[in-house]
Amino acid sequence: MSENHYAEFSECSMKPQDVLEYVSGPMPVPAEGEVLIRMKAAPINPADINFVQGVYGVKPVLPHSRAGLEGCGVVQESRAEGFRKDDEVILLRGVGSWSEYVAVPAVNVMKLPVKVDPVQAAMLKVNPLTALRMLEGFVSLTPGDWVVQNASNSGVGRCIIQLAREMGVKTVNFVRRPDELRDELTALGADLVVGEDDEDVVKNTLARLDGKRPVLASNAVGGESALRLMDMLAPGGSMVTYGAMSRKSIKVPNGFLIFKGIKLEGLWVTQWLKNAPVPEIEAAYDKLARLMADGRLKQAVDTVYPLSDVRRAVEKAQEEFRSGKVVLSMERV
Amino acid sequence: MSENHYAEFSECSMKPQDVLEYVSGPMPVPAEGEVLIRMKAAPINPADINFVQGVYGVKPVLPHSRAGLEGCGVVQESRAEGFRKDDEVILLRGVGSWSEYVAVPAVNVMKLPVKVDPVQAAMLKVNPLTALRMLEGFVSLTPGDWVVQNASNSGVGRCIIQLAREMGVKTVNFVRRPDELRDELTALGADLVVGEDDEDVVKNTLARLDGKRPVLASNAVGGESALRLMDMLAPGGSMVTYGAMSRKSIKVPNGFLIFKGIKLEGLWVTQWLKNAPVPEIEAAYDKLARLMADGRLKQAVDTVYPLSDVRRAVEKAQEEFRSGKVVLSMERV
Repeated sequence: MSENHYAEFSECSMKPQDVLEYVSGPMPVPAEGEVLIRMKAAPINPADINFVQGVYGVKPVLPHSRAGLEGCGVVQESRAEGFRKDDEVILLRGVGSWSEYVAVPAVNVMKLPVKVDPVQAAMLKVNPLTALRMLEGFVSLTPGDWVVQNASNSGVGRCIIQLAREMGVKTVNFVRRPDELRDELTALGADLVVGEDDEDVVKNTLARLDGKRPVLASNAVGGESALRLMDMLAPGGSMVTYGAMSRKSIKVPNGFLIFKGIKLEGLWVTQWLKNAPVPEIEAAYDKLARLMADGRLKQAVDTVYPLSDVRRAVEKAQEEFRSGKVVLSMERV
Repeated sequence: MSENHYAEFSECSMKPQDVLEYVSGPMPVPAEGEVLIRMKAAPINPADINFVQGVYGVKPVLPHSRAGLEGCGVVQESRAEGFRKDDEVILLRGVGSWSEYVAVPAVNVMKLPVKVDPVQAAMLKVNPLTALRMLEGFVSLTPGDWVVQNASNSGVGRCIIQLAREMGVKTVNFVRRPDELRDELTALGADLVVGEDDEDVVKNTLARLDGKRPVLASNAVGGESALRLMDMLAPGGSMVTYGAMSRKSIKVPNGFLIFKGIKLEGLWVTQWLKNAPVPEIEAAYDKLARLMADGRLKQAVDTVYPLSDVRRAVEKAQEEFRSGKVVLSMERV
C-alpha cells in the first residue's frame, strides 16, 4: 500500500492512447491543510481527451502531467479541518483523478452529502453540474417551456433530459440514431427524440410543440447542428454552447441576432467553479447528489476498466457509438 | 397645397432606384387621434435600402408601399391630445417618411424637446438611439473602459464615438480608410482609429489599450471583421450586432463562447421601440435631442437632395465611400 499508480503523459497527442502511461510512484504525503484521498473511480470525458491532446481550456504542465479532471474517492488521511478518514468525497478542481492516491488542498475537495454509488459519484462534478447550470443559469424556465438540445445522448444530454423532467420543462432531443435511442431517452424523460438528418426536421419538429418554440438551446456540436437549434429558438431565446463535437465553428446568420434577437452564450463549469460563491456550489452539488442517490439522475456507463488499462479505456472512450461513459476504476479486486 | 408628393414602390428590387417612384396623391386627412405632419427631411439609411429590397426585418405591404423609416417635420393640423400646430416632431414608428405630408396616429410621433436643425433631427430616431442602446443596453460601462467597433465611420459608428466620449468611455474604431478618416474621427472623440486590413491589427491594437481589453464590441459588418472584434474582447465581454454590411454570417469559434465566455447579442431599435416603456423611450430621445441641440452629437451629411430626386438620392446612398448620410429634403424652395 506504499505504492501509488497513476496515468501520466509527457507530450500532447491527438491520440491520447499513444502518450498516456500507467506508472507507479511513491505514495503522496498530505501537507497541512490537505487530505490524502484513495480514489475509487474516474470517468473519461471528452474534456479529458482534449486535455491530453492539448486543446482544452486548461493546458497540461509538461514534461510530466497527470490526467483526469474529475473522480471520487474516500479520505484516507486528513490534515484539514472539516474532513476525516472514510469521508466520501469528489475532486472539485485540479487534474490527476486517474490515480490511486492523491493529496490535495481541502478547498479542492467536496464531501458527498449522501451515499452515492462510486461510479455515479465519480461523474457528479462535470456533466450533472453542466446540465444544471444550463437549465438554471441563462433563461428563467417555467413548467411547460421547451428546451432543445443536440448531442442528447451524451453525458450532459442525458442529465439535461432528467433535470428538465424534474422541473416540468419539456425537451426536444437531437440525436444521430433516433430509432435506436428513442425508447431509452423517452424512459429518462425526453419528450421528443429526433434525428439530426431527418428531412425538414426543424419545420416538422416545431409542428409538434403545441404552438410554442424552445426558449433555450443547449449546443455541444456546433456547425450545421447549431444552426438548426438557432433556427428553432423562440425570438429572444438563448443558445448556450458547452461543447464542439463537430469541431466546426458556429455560423450565425446576422438576422438571427438583429431581428430574431437570439443570444449566444457559453458554459464552462470549470470557470463557474472558480468564480461562484461556495454556498452556491455546495447547494448545486447537494441537489444533484440527492437526485443521484434517489436514482432520479443517472449517467449511462458503457464499460468500467481498471486504471492499469487506461490506454484501452481512452481508446474506447473515443469510439463514436457507445452506450454510455467509459469509467476507470481504482478499486483493486 | 392640396397636393401631396411621396416616394412609393410596387415591387421589391435589389436596385431600389429602379422601382421607387416620385408620385403625387391627394393630401392626407388626419382621423381622430392623428396628426397631419408636413415633413421637412428624411435620411436614406441602409435599413431604408433593405426595406425596398425586401430584405429588412419589416416587410413592405405591396402592391403599393411608401418608403422611408424615419424623418422629421412640423405639425400642420392636430386631431390628437398633446400636439398642436407648428410642433416640431419626429416619426417614431411606421413607414412613409419620404413624403411631403403624412397623417399618423399620435402614438407614432414624438415632439422634440428642444429646437434641433431639421436635417439632424430627421436622423434622430435610428442611429443615435442605436448608439445609445449599444452603450447602455448590454454592458455596464464605466469611465476608462474600452469599446471596440467596426463600420466606425457609419452613422451609428460616429454616434457611438460621440456618446462614448460623453461617458468617458474609450473607443477603438475599425475603418477601411484609416489614414483618410483618422483626423475627422479623432476630432469627434475617437481614441484609436485603425484599419481593417492592417497587418497584425488585433495584436498591435491590443498593445495600445493600457493593458486592458474592450468589454463591448459593436458589430455592423459580420464576417472576418466580426471575428476580429470577438478576438479583441475581454473574457466575458459582449459583441452586439446591429448590422451586416459584409452580408457574411458571423463565424464563431466555439472556444470563444465556452472558454472565453463571450456573449453574442443583437440590437434592433425598431424592436426596442415596440417594447420599451414610453418614459424610457422619451428619456432616451430627450438626452439625444439635447446633445444634438448643443452640437455635441452630430451626424455627417454627404448630400441633401429634394424629394423629387429620390432615385438619384438612393443611388448615391448606395455608393461605398461617402462623407456622410444622404438626406431627402421636402422643403419646397
